[in-house]
Amino acid sequence: MLPRVRTATRKDIPEILRLNALLSDFHVRIDPYYKSGEETAGGFKLVLENLFDDEKTNILVADKGNGLAGYFIGMIQPPKPFLRPEKTGRISDAFVEQAFRGRGLGEKMFDRLVEWFKENGIRHIELSVDARNPEGIGAWRKYGFKDFMIKMRLDL
Amino acid sequence: MLPRVRTATRKDIPEILRLNALLSDFHVRIDPYYKSGEETAGGFKLVLENLFDDEKTNILVADKGNGLAGYFIGMIQPPKPFLRPEKTGRISDAFVEQAFRGRGLGEKMFDRLVEWFKENGIRHIELSVDARNPEGIGAWRKYGFKDFMIKMRLDL
Repeated sequence: MLPRVRTATRKDIPEILRLNALLSDFHVRIDPYYKSGEETAGGFKLVLENLFDDEKTNILVADKGNGLAGYFIGMIQPPKPFLRPEKTGRISDAFVEQAFRGRGLGEKMFDRLVEWFKENGIRHIELSVDARNPEGIGAWRKYGFKDFMIKMRLDL
Repeated sequence: MLPRVRTATRKDIPEILRLNALLSDFHVRIDPYYKSGEETAGGFKLVLENLFDDEKTNILVADKGNGLAGYFIGMIQPPKPFLRPEKTGRISDAFVEQAFRGRGLGEKMFDRLVEWFKENGIRHIELSVDARNPEGIGAWRKYGFKDFMIKMRLDL
């Protein structure tokens, strides 16, 4: 049975933390510049708990009955000094467990976030993806995202 | 005569504002998502004035005698929750007037920033460049910068 997409509750926090640690560990395998899931767990727990009190944040999860198969976090951001929009949407987290990919779960969560963004007058959604993550970049391109800025780094 | 690279003083503020407006106008021609120089001037003036009081910021200019031919701004940033370094360097602004390009002025300002970053224990420098600015991306690649993150955007 396909996991059911729904709004997250505080009871989902331990499972979201588990998935977020997988996401961190994925990044640290790309580049040790990132912290591992173990290193980010404490800080992310505090951030996540606060997000549940924030009406400008929407946390969606894919519930597989005995846990979560994925989660997406969308937020409405204030204007930035050099950009025209009064407010923008941001997808800060997006993760689906390996075993549940290719079943449209990510798309379902994404579509629900887009609905919510539109209801809140958002016309532009931004997100960041590691430049060496072709699977991630490809998924967002499929949804219509275009490259906007590149963050570059020099290690001295 | 080649403009002389030196540390900026408050007297340079009007010229830095003029160059920053050119930089904004360059971006707005790439994408009207950016604000024009006229629109960003007021906000940037306030930011810039405060940067002169901030010892974690280094502003360099290329002085042509009757004004500035370019400016670079480097800053030392606190740690980020998901990244390993205790502190990182950031180049927030980098601009050389069209007529003065290709003479190594940018490289001179960049080298001085790198010196300063090293003196301050910085081992990683980050910067953002528009994904549709091949000239900018090429210059940073020449200095050894590598693509780290891509910010993507969907216009609804």
